[in-house]
Amino acid sequence: LAANYDANATTDVDELFKNPDLDAVAITSIAAAHADLIVKAAEAGKAIFCEKPMALTLEEADRAINAANQADVPLQIGFNRRFSADFALAHETIVAGGIGTPQLMRSITRDPGWPAGLADAAGVPAWTIFRETLIHDFDMLLWLNPGAEPVEVYTKADALVAPDFKDNGLLDTAVVMITFDNGAIATAEANFSAAYGYDVRGEVFGSAGMVTAGRLNHSPMVLYNERGMEQRTLRSDVEMFRDAYIRELTDFTDAVRNNTTPAVTGHDARAALRVALAAMKSHQEHRPVQLEELP
Amino acid sequence: LAANYDANATTDVDELFKNPDLDAVAITSIAAAHADLIVKAAEAGKAIFCEKPMALTLEEADRAINAANQADVPLQIGFNRRFSADFALAHETIVAGGIGTPQLMRSITRDPGWPAGLADAAGVPAWTIFRETLIHDFDMLLWLNPGAEPVEVYTKADALVAPDFKDNGLLDTAVVMITFDNGAIATAEANFSAAYGYDVRGEVFGSAGMVTAGRLNHSPMVLYNERGMEQRTLRSDVEMFRDAYIRELTDFTDAVRNNTTPAVTGHDARAALRVALAAMKSHQEHRPVQLEELP
Amino acid sequence: LAANYDANATTDVDELFKNPDLDAVAITSIAAAHADLIVKAAEAGKAIFCEKPMALTLEEADRAINAANQADVPLQIGFNRRFSADFALAHETIVAGGIGTPQLMRSITRDPGWPAGLADAAGVPAWTIFRETLIHDFDMLLWLNPGAEPVEVYTKADALVAPDFKDNGLLDTAVVMITFDNGAIATAEANFSAAYGYDVRGEVFGSAGMVTAGRLNHSPMVLYNERGMEQRTLRSDVEMFRDAYIRELTDFTDAVRNNTTPAVTGHDARAALRVALAAMKSHQEHRPVQLEELP
Amino acid sequence: LAANYDANATTDVDELFKNPDLDAVAITSIAAAHADLIVKAAEAGKAIFCEKPMALTLEEADRAINAANQADVPLQIGFNRRFSADFALAHETIVAGGIGTPQLMRSITRDPGWPAGLADAAGVPAWTIFRETLIHDFDMLLWLNPGAEPVEVYTKADALVAPDFKDNGLLDTAVVMITFDNGAIATAEANFSAAYGYDVRGEVFGSAGMVTAGRLNHSPMVLYNERGMEQRTLRSDVEMFRDAYIRELTDFTDAVRNNTTPAVTGHDARAALRVALAAMKSHQEHRPVQLEELP
Repeated sequence: LAANYDANATTDVDELFKNPDLDAVAITSIAAAHADLIVKAAEAGKAIFCEKPMALTLEEADRAINAANQADVPLQIGFNRRFSADFALAHETIVAGGIGTPQLMRSITRDPGWPAGLADAAGVPAWTIFRETLIHDFDMLLWLNPGAEPVEVYTKADALVAPDFKDNGLLDTAVVMITFDNGAIATAEANFSAAYGYDVRGEVFGSAGMVTAGRLNHSPMVLYNERGMEQRTLRSDVEMFRDAYIRELTDFTDAVRNNTTPAVTGHDARAALRVALAAMKSHQEHRPVQLEELP
Repeated sequence: LAANYDANATTDVDELFKNPDLDAVAITSIAAAHADLIVKAAEAGKAIFCEKPMALTLEEADRAINAANQADVPLQIGFNRRFSADFALAHETIVAGGIGTPQLMRSITRDPGWPAGLADAAGVPAWTIFRETLIHDFDMLLWLNPGAEPVEVYTKADALVAPDFKDNGLLDTAVVMITFDNGAIATAEANFSAAYGYDVRGEVFGSAGMVTAGRLNHSPMVLYNERGMEQRTLRSDVEMFRDAYIRELTDFTDAVRNNTTPAVTGHDARAALRVALAAMKSHQEHRPVQLEELP
Repeated sequence: LAANYDANATTDVDELFKNPDLDAVAITSIAAAHADLIVKAAEAGKAIFCEKPMALTLEEADRAINAANQADVPLQIGFNRRFSADFALAHETIVAGGIGTPQLMRSITRDPGWPAGLADAAGVPAWTIFRETLIHDFDMLLWLNPGAEPVEVYTKADALVAPDFKDNGLLDTAVVMITFDNGAIATAEANFSAAYGYDVRGEVFGSAGMVTAGRLNHSPMVLYNERGMEQRTLRSDVEMFRDAYIRELTDFTDAVRNNTTPAVTGHDARAALRVALAAMKSHQEHRPVQLEELP
Repeated sequence: LAANYDANATTDVDELFKNPDLDAVAITSIAAAHADLIVKAAEAGKAIFCEKPMALTLEEADRAINAANQADVPLQIGFNRRFSADFALAHETIVAGGIGTPQLMRSITRDPGWPAGLADAAGVPAWTIFRETLIHDFDMLLWLNPGAEPVEVYTKADALVAPDFKDNGLLDTAVVMITFDNGAIATAEANFSAAYGYDVRGEVFGSAGMVTAGRLNHSPMVLYNERGMEQRTLRSDVEMFRDAYIRELTDFTDAVRNNTTPAVTGHDARAALRVALAAMKSHQEHRPVQLEELP
């Protein structure tokens, strides 16, 4: 079911996609290759699971979505948090009206250490924190504020973890404030080096209550000794989202088998990418950016 | 309002109790002196707050209760846990039927270190863990199983913290299993040396739910670093029960001012003492003891 | 790899065990059939995973262990808690000396509802709570007090959930107090009907600290509204031990592949069974039972 | 010690301040009267405790600070959170280097319902959320990022709770993003109507760890039933900060008695007010405001 892609050997992919035994492909290459691969896979009639972001620009995203539409193949983008039991239950609660209308939102991502190899990837890294990391938070904020549209974005970002890379445009710490058309004010926050491990949390405060999702402890085991009480923390996305990854791919294969629309579509991924691009523009121009400035 | 008692100068107390400006006394002497002081204070017409245990034997307890009754003065015993917000809310929930009928219960007390001076108090210490420590747990279990009567007690106790004192009869670790006439099976547990501090907790499981009370963290502040997540723990009863002590004495002074029955009566204290004495008998005779063996 | 056993068609099993393509079997039949099946499987040279309890009597257990030994096949018994991340970390911490010497222990099992079909199983059910439920807790207490031997057991048990079945000998609520030769005093507790779901927890208090394991919330998601704050609870063992079940079977297949001793041996299972049998004897004879009374 | 001020009877205050038996005054009037009262009290030689904000403008704040300086009297402003055990421990940990250099910060205030009477106070309310509510958060962020100076402020605010009052300028929901000269990016957030009660929390993430402060549960008591697990929430500032209020005033009276500098000075209060004024300017002008635009 899975296609292993080697960026230096695209002809292999062309060969691979011709394989009639292959019903579906999972694209987990570098982000810059995603849109092209989606188009190729769609043209080959394969169902497509593609890691986020689906593309680096809205034009590429549209091209990929159109290709999947024309080929009538399922296209699912890898927003794993939607399949985590706590975030899914938060969403279900919000949709059911359990917290009223969202007014204040928060989504954070803190990685336990420096993403391997980023420093070498000339050109790409500058926007990684927006398009590859915070894009999870943008998707969460859109998903947890159903029916609302983002209106304005304001970004503050810096290189606090590795200041020496700032001249190369590599940002490692960012906060993005997003205002929605239902009045909700959200903050998305990311950092590339949390000393205590992996930290992904969400909070939605509404007119009738609040939901929080995410945990910091690795397991329920607590140790009490002369220093106090202690718990181990999560050290990787896999530790936190192991079950979510399983559900995500199960959901995709179900969609392929039953020929149904996947839970996370290309349109969802485009909407998150649009916020990411607005956040990047806000950072570059040092000003609040209206979403309507983007297509 | 408070009477400071010096065990070596009882005439002072006699003088003190004659003072007509004194409405009430708080007895916080060694336990062996409690019953006598309650009787004296009652005969002097003073309202009485006395620390637990109210007496060392049931005979003494009856004498103290009778003295207070005949003098028609309020008598409150110092079971502070009843005034802690969490234990009080647990009680309120149980009385309101929130967990159905209690079936399994637990109450624990772990002190952060060795009670000062105990080793020197020849004669007394052997039973301290039952009559001065676990008596809190016995009161809790009786209070949180309203209307039920204890039927049987079985005790295992040992000197694990300070084995050298075992020959003197000094026990520092004990578990008492108590069966009630409504079927509930309870465990009371104590230890004199918790490395992490002060630990008082309760749990009542019933046919329709469960309540838990007690906390281990000193404050809500959490520190996350490369070792994991940490909280400071409670180091003394005062840190845990500061507000409870204030409420306890406020409740007593209210009872005095309004001439009402205190929240914790001599009868309550006698019932807890009776369980303590049964637990001691069980330890001595290495067998389950029926409560009906005691008056 | 797995053998599906039908109690009414044992010849099928004999046929099945002759299959040379079968390296290992997982025995998940009713408890009464475990020992016989282990012997048959061992004689057929199969590696064996058997659900707990391994047998109903010590004689049967010895027969099963001997058969596996003589055939030199791996025998693993299904104590799933050992593979849960929190219980495993508690064990690791204790073995490393992180809490000093255990002094007070607790292990509880509360099932979310009545075990299906028990009432119909004439003869068997009376002891189910000891041999099929609490046996998990006995294994935990032995495993979390490494090197110590149980000395005495005292049991209180009743039919509080379904009193009508008491005449049939069916007990649904039990507390067992176990004393160890290193002085540790433990309580094991079970109930067949927890209104709030599935509740498995452990606590070990030692001379230098404490560890706790187990959780009650289904996911980290918290809802705050005008009633307060709420979390969903666990509703089944699968919700709590999903990852543990995976690890347990992975561990077994690793033992089979590498021809190593499984993590949970027949000797471990016999030791837990011995405590269960002592607890049953204590209940029957209404007295503390010394473990040395059993072989 | 306390002076009860009636805004319609200032001559009473003048009389009161002449009282030589009065060592100190606590000013808890409407915010608009604070600065004038501080000046009067200072001229009368009284030690001064004044509720936040100390003034409505920086000019007033400077006048009040100068008056206290010239009279050489202690001046303490009522930032109660600094005296809460958890926030104080967070500060202590940060000062000791426990989390390295702050990079991401958060401080929130959510009130359980609409502040009484605000709607009637024509003219004042428009900025209440900044100068009377968020000023707590601004003080926290400055205090928990010791040595750093705020550089830029960006505000999004709205009337989501009571949209009808928006035309009067009354804002009830606000998020302020603050950038510091050490790179830290902070968000301060407030809302006037939390369905679940009173919610004050803080979080500081640094290069070596994180601290969190604040709690949502009213007491440690947890109820488990067929709906799941539940805790009561805090319903007022008094429930959350009872001990902090006691410590705050104890600290002030200690400063008066020992003639020492109070823990929260007029300079601290001016710094928080300056951020509040910048946040108001950002809201009015729909743009990021540099702190250097203000005196």
